[in-house]
Amino acid sequence: SQLLHSSPQQRPFRVCNWDRSLKKGVMAEGLQNLLDKVQESLHITSSTSLLLEEDGTVIETEEFFQTVPDNTLFMALEKGQKWTPPENSGFHL
Amino acid sequence: SQLLHSSPQQRPFRVCNWDRSLKKGVMAEGLQNLLDKVQESLHITSSTSLLLEEDGTVIETEEFFQTVPDNTLFMALEKGQKWTPPENSGFHL
Repeated sequence: SQLLHSSPQQRPFRVCNWDRSLKKGVMAEGLQNLLDKVQESLHITSSTSLLLEEDGTVIETEEFFQTVPDNTLFMALEKGQKWTPPENSGFHL
Repeated sequence: SQLLHSSPQQRPFRVCNWDRSLKKGVMAEGLQNLLDKVQESLHITSSTSLLLEEDGTVIETEEFFQTVPDNTLFMALEKGQKWTPPENSGFHL
């Protein structure tokens, strides 16, 4: 039925919470789908935003989401939470 | 219909505000298109200029814009705002 209905392909992503204490692997076919699954698996209830963990870029559109590679690490933030740089930021080799 | 109309290709970019407190992923097919979308997504109303975040280069022509790679990080400035160097500037290896 996957083939018959040609459903969008699920891709693997990784999502952490605001302080990077929890990180989970999540399959998703799009931004809204990932947001739904993240709220469930990271136990986030309020409105959630998804950012690139590496530089805090907020992802708001499906079009941009489709350009990020498999296994991209996102950070999921609830209202009031802020992105902070990774600890080794600025020391990339 | 994408093919029939051969619409210009949208590319991914990242745009931050003057103090780098907000950064968003934006798809755009050109400089003017990116400016339009940035005003919406960063809630900028007045006249906007786009600079390369890394060194403050002002981008004013579509021709130059077409030469920057996907996912280039821009800074969007309103009238009166100034570019400042990134904090970890000088520590890149």
